[in-house]
Order: sequence, then structure tokens, then C-alpha cells
Amino acid sequence: MAEALDKLIAALGRLPGIGRRSAERIAMAILADPAGLGAAVKTAIDDALDELTPCRLCGNITPKTADPCEICTDPRRDSRLLCIVEGPGDILAMERAGVFKGRYHALMGRLSPMRGQGPRNLRLESLIERIQREGVREVLLALNSDVEGDATAAFLIDLLRPQAVTVTRLARGLPAGGGLAYADAETLARAIEFRQQW
Amino acid sequence: MAEALDKLIAALGRLPGIGRRSAERIAMAILADPAGLGAAVKTAIDDALDELTPCRLCGNITPKTADPCEICTDPRRDSRLLCIVEGPGDILAMERAGVFKGRYHALMGRLSPMRGQGPRNLRLESLIERIQREGVREVLLALNSDVEGDATAAFLIDLLRPQAVTVTRLARGLPAGGGLAYADAETLARAIEFRQQW
Repeated sequence: MAEALDKLIAALGRLPGIGRRSAERIAMAILADPAGLGAAVKTAIDDALDELTPCRLCGNITPKTADPCEICTDPRRDSRLLCIVEGPGDILAMERAGVFKGRYHALMGRLSPMRGQGPRNLRLESLIERIQREGVREVLLALNSDVEGDATAAFLIDLLRPQAVTVTRLARGLPAGGGLAYADAETLARAIEFRQQW
Repeated sequence: MAEALDKLIAALGRLPGIGRRSAERIAMAILADPAGLGAAVKTAIDDALDELTPCRLCGNITPKTADPCEICTDPRRDSRLLCIVEGPGDILAMERAGVFKGRYHALMGRLSPMRGQGPRNLRLESLIERIQREGVREVLLALNSDVEGDATAAFLIDLLRPQAVTVTRLARGLPAGGGLAYADAETLARAIEFRQQW
């Protein structure tokens, strides 16, 4: 196989959710149509990397011409309420929900010993500095609900103990529209454990 | 959302197997790490598009410095046996199997009325021309085993009727290592229908 093809498949395989076979399919689709799909993907990546950056404060993806981002600079946002997420995609998801009116701090990762990701790979110094500088009162942990997310949350709770902040986390329970019979046992167990008064 | 981000998500969403949510996750991973993962993906796509091309004869991905590709120019390959595939990824899969010693012709698509893909989107003129010029005797249809693949095969059988070629197709049956109890009903029905003498 040509070296440039090998390297493309390897690079695509580093993207989230893309395994070896998916990377091959994607590489072939790009190269089978270089003037169409290939050019469109190349241009979109070039333009996005040229024009966008992670916000220097929160990590949200923002135009380089608007860094810090519009969430960090919005005076109507409550700077005393800080939501910790793993990455900028989670900020997008939180904003879609439309009810959170504080600010964000993306760790740009999670604790993952399996992939060699430790505390030094996370944006922790700037987190502590922001909490102190911005007078944060509540830290909402909005991490993924899985083993690595839970381990990262436990680590953060320890880390934040010396700070004068309340630490909260997203509620666990049944997803909206989720029928009982379709919920996995773990989800249902937590929905029972954390049952709320009507 | 920034326009460049919207466009990146839209471009990634055109890749095979990538839905809206996957495209968002991939875009965010690229932009969250512009100097690392982002640069690696950008460089790999740029280099691959610079250096590689679909082979002018068969559609296989090949260095621009070796077009026609090494399969088309290999004198040990039987030019009378031509395998029709949907795209260059299928050539990779066929070569991995290691038993086919003819040449290939990628259609660069399949009949898909749902996505507006008709015969004029397929490489059919060059197919007929090759069959005649290269004295092809057998055409092996190696299309995907699904509704659109079957429709494309039926169309090709009609198209090839005036040519003096035998048309064959990949055998249908149980996958290697596939237990009977795990096979879906359609696969098992075909394995029975096309049972082979021991």
C-alpha cells in the first residue's frame, strides 16, 4: 500500500469513534473523488483550523477573532457557576439543552490510564486559577457517565476540596422519552437510587 | 455556531458511515487539538491528495507517479478476467483475500435512486471499452450483498449481455468461522440454495 495512504488511514484512525475499517473506508472515499468530496473535506479542515481556536479561557471552539469566546465574555452569564466538561463537544451539547447560564471549563481530556492520560494532560492549573480569580461558588461536573468519567470526577472532587466551592454533578436517571423496559439495569438502578420527590 | 465549524461538520457528515453526531465529535476533536491531532489529519489529507490518484484504468488508489496502477501494469495478471467492484476500498479487500489474479474495474459508485445515483454516475463507458480492447472473457461481479448492490448487478448483467463475456459473481453463503446459529435467515437461506458438492 502507498505510504501516503497508510498515513492517511492511521491519522483518520486516531479520530474518535473511527476504527481501522472505518478509517479505510473514509480514506478511500476521499481519494476516490479528489475533486469533489476530497477537496470539500480538505478545504473545510483547512478553513476551520485557520479560523477557529479553542477559547483561551474555557476551551470552547471559537473564531480566532473572538477569543475569549462569546460565552466567556457574555456579561449575562453567571461567572460564579462553572461547569467542567471533558471537551468542547460537551459545551455544544450543554448549550443545546438551553438551561445552563453559567460558564464552562473544558479539561480537554479525561483520566484514562489505558491511553496514558493522567492529570498533567488536563487543564487543571487554569481551572484552579479561574475558580479563585472569578469567585466561583459552584462547580458542576458534567462528565461522561462511564468508568473513566467517574474516575475523573472523583479526582476533581479531591482536587477541589481546598477550594470554597460547592461541587455538584448532572443528575443520573431515565433519559427523556426512555421507556422503563428499554433502560439498562445500571440506568434504572440509579434512577431508583436517586429518585426525586414529585 | 461559527460558520467554519458548521461547514466542517457538514463536510465530515458526507463521509461514509459518519452521521451528524459523529461529524460533530470528529470536528471537535480536530479543533480541540489543532497542533496535534488537527495538524496530523490536515497533513495526512493534504499529502494523500497531492500524491495519490484513482488509477485511470481501474480506479484503484495509486501514486500519481504510477498511473496506471501496479495491478493494471502487472504482466502476470490475467487481463481476460475482470472484476467489477463499487470502489477502490473493495479492491483493497479483494487483494487481502489473496486469490484473485485478474484485474479490476471500480464503478466509483452504485445504482442508488434514493441518493440520485444513476447509470451516468458510474464508470460504464470505460468498462465496455476495456472489455473490448483487453479481450476480457470473464467478468466477476464483486458488488456488495444488499439491495442496491443487487440492483447494480442486475443492471450490469443486462448491459453486458451484448458482450462476449461470461458473467460470474461472488458466492453467497456462510462467512468463514460463522456458526449456523449466528447466521441471519437470509444468509442461511442462500447458503442452502447455493449449497456446493463436497
